[in-house]
Amino acid sequence: MAFKVGLLGLGTVGSGTAEILLNPAQRHPLLQELEIHRVGVRSLAKPRAVELPAETLTTDVESIVADPEIDIVVEVMGGLEPARSLMLKAIANGKHVVTANKAAIARFGDEIFTAANEAGVYVLLEAAVAGGIPVIEPLKQSLCANRIHSITGIVNGTTNYILSRMQTEGSNFETVLADAQQLGYAEADPTADVDGLDAADKIAILASLAFGGRIKLAEVYCEGIRPVSATDIAYAEKLGFVIKLLATAKREISAGGESGPADQLQVRVHPTLVPKVHPLASVNGVYNAILIEGDPVGQVMFFGPGAGAGPTASAVVSDILNIAAILKVGRGGILQANGKPLLDPLLAYSHQHYCAIAPIEELVTRFYARVLTQDNPGVIGKLGTCFGNHNVSLESVVQIGLQDDRAEIVVITHYVQERNFRQALEEIGSFESLTVPSVLRVL
Amino acid sequence: MAFKVGLLGLGTVGSGTAEILLNPAQRHPLLQELEIHRVGVRSLAKPRAVELPAETLTTDVESIVADPEIDIVVEVMGGLEPARSLMLKAIANGKHVVTANKAAIARFGDEIFTAANEAGVYVLLEAAVAGGIPVIEPLKQSLCANRIHSITGIVNGTTNYILSRMQTEGSNFETVLADAQQLGYAEADPTADVDGLDAADKIAILASLAFGGRIKLAEVYCEGIRPVSATDIAYAEKLGFVIKLLATAKREISAGGESGPADQLQVRVHPTLVPKVHPLASVNGVYNAILIEGDPVGQVMFFGPGAGAGPTASAVVSDILNIAAILKVGRGGILQANGKPLLDPLLAYSHQHYCAIAPIEELVTRFYARVLTQDNPGVIGKLGTCFGNHNVSLESVVQIGLQDDRAEIVVITHYVQERNFRQALEEIGSFESLTVPSVLRVL
Repeated sequence: MAFKVGLLGLGTVGSGTAEILLNPAQRHPLLQELEIHRVGVRSLAKPRAVELPAETLTTDVESIVADPEIDIVVEVMGGLEPARSLMLKAIANGKHVVTANKAAIARFGDEIFTAANEAGVYVLLEAAVAGGIPVIEPLKQSLCANRIHSITGIVNGTTNYILSRMQTEGSNFETVLADAQQLGYAEADPTADVDGLDAADKIAILASLAFGGRIKLAEVYCEGIRPVSATDIAYAEKLGFVIKLLATAKREISAGGESGPADQLQVRVHPTLVPKVHPLASVNGVYNAILIEGDPVGQVMFFGPGAGAGPTASAVVSDILNIAAILKVGRGGILQANGKPLLDPLLAYSHQHYCAIAPIEELVTRFYARVLTQDNPGVIGKLGTCFGNHNVSLESVVQIGLQDDRAEIVVITHYVQERNFRQALEEIGSFESLTVPSVLRVL
Repeated sequence: MAFKVGLLGLGTVGSGTAEILLNPAQRHPLLQELEIHRVGVRSLAKPRAVELPAETLTTDVESIVADPEIDIVVEVMGGLEPARSLMLKAIANGKHVVTANKAAIARFGDEIFTAANEAGVYVLLEAAVAGGIPVIEPLKQSLCANRIHSITGIVNGTTNYILSRMQTEGSNFETVLADAQQLGYAEADPTADVDGLDAADKIAILASLAFGGRIKLAEVYCEGIRPVSATDIAYAEKLGFVIKLLATAKREISAGGESGPADQLQVRVHPTLVPKVHPLASVNGVYNAILIEGDPVGQVMFFGPGAGAGPTASAVVSDILNIAAILKVGRGGILQANGKPLLDPLLAYSHQHYCAIAPIEELVTRFYARVLTQDNPGVIGKLGTCFGNHNVSLESVVQIGLQDDRAEIVVITHYVQERNFRQALEEIGSFESLTVPSVLRVL
């Protein structure tokens, strides 16, 4: 008995997926029971990296999700539509779905998982977060006994590559971005990566899994790396930090107590000063890493290639095999009330409620601020007083350099509430001959 | 419906396991469907860290594996017997088994998995390797599409703690071991850890999973850390290396071609010079890390706490939940020829053949050797000639220091065959006024 796979898309990830399915030697023997039945493409004429029988290819993608012979639909076309509609149709037709589409899942996950639960089919998405690094399945299965406290990840390879090069070369953002675009590490339109949107999609998916609730993507706070300057990277380095774009999801009691319920989540993406001794500090280039803290496991970290045809296809095909393994032993005998098979509670997303996300103003964190000023002897006192008036306690204030005849002061705070810090900054911004070109958070 | 768990053992890991099972809040909701039915202990009188109803405890462990109400037997008593017999009896009685017992699995895995396959029950063992770090399940499921090339791990926390302290303090092995014993990081009888036996058990288990065949533990080459001196650590440091006890399993074509078939495995444990830039070099203290290389995933690394009640219990309870999830949806409808349920081919160990393990003499690796000599001007030439005669090409020969009026020379080779290197060493050992106190491999 062979399990029939319908592929939607034969781009980079689709070709990588087909490549593995066509070369099962020395891999898990179950792979030999999989068959690529149909592949949906935009153009039949385009030359392809993988050799498939001509009759397998079709431009009629609708026919794939409707094909009664197909067991598993693999969506690797990307984009929001028609990916969303095709996944929903496949589910309605009783097909299991494997997808690498973080954007569609982060936006339409609610709809897709509700439909999948009703239909009694699985939707697996290991490839949607951190490419080939196993993190979705470990969160669902290997760590499922834990009470997760936090997930902190470098989940976007493009921005990590840019920041790593800015760090080693001392170059500024625009120069490295242009070069990364030429080398194929950044897209022609780099918005989704450099503005943190891709990382926001991924942390929304991880948070949903880790904390057992749905996440509204619009509530994920998101800052990209455009404002990070070579100057900040150099100062951070002197102070013992590297700057990384971190995606964080955390269950935490709000500061002050009165400002929110204890079980709110923080879910956010922003450039962050990471102490050099921290395990995430040494993750460089296009690599990704995800640090998970839970009770009782403590800290575990997953590291590896966050993108690329091979790593992503590794995750896609592993998901296909996981579904094939379930089909192989026969679906369980227990049915839902609607007559459809009951889903494995660790593999399915059964939660219906939305997690409460704390507004960023309630975040309690440390801040780094770079202040430019006319070299006025009273300015440090003035800054200190202003922060103090707003309940912002300072860890260090260092006059660190000169730029265009103006003194540059770097302030690092203790843990303070973002709202208080912002109010202090607003007041400082009104001071004459004083500007604050950079504000970053510190891990 | 509750799934009933029988615990064999209520020591550190058993107590940690019970602790999670008794506190399901904010963990996966499936945990609420688990119930500790019986717990087997040596003494009923002993005070316990966890509170369990007195009638749950029993010294009659045989009654647990025979209890018809119990679905899942959790073996956390350790040791070879009666652990092995109890697991086999539980399996014969149709119970699923979760174990943290690397020693029993590495020695009796063949027997245990054969019995489990026949009975149609699962034996899960995430906790047997690297404590709380998910690595067994990722290998079985998330990475199952890959052709695994190698697994390289720091899988013994005690030796990593000792080597890390020797590195930072410049102390010798005996001093740090004594202190580690006092602090509880090393056992009173440290043999299993410091001689590499525990790491050998673990790499045998990982190799079996990664390469889909059984491993004879006796064929795993094993060297411990006793011979590693503070001097070697200091010299390695100067040359850009740290010394780690690495456990390695690798599929590789033998050197020379004629010496063995291409699909032999190397499975070995030994202290190794690791370049400081390598991801495993910065794994210090009691932490564990496992680096897996596969096609097409590339390199992925898993890092975290390799031991301790909490992390190990995290893995044990996650395995229990994975079995409960399968039971929850109803076992698959497809049966084996013997009428027992067919097992999920990703979760079960179905392979019957033994992997061919290459003898250590066929290993192709780089070596570090420390040579002590009367400061004789001709000695470097003599060494170089001798190595050359045995086909051992040298990367560097450095006269690095003096010890007791004798010159100390450090040799690092290119990739050479172990057999050739050993023959050269034997000849060098016969030279007058020349000794070779340390030989280590280089990653």
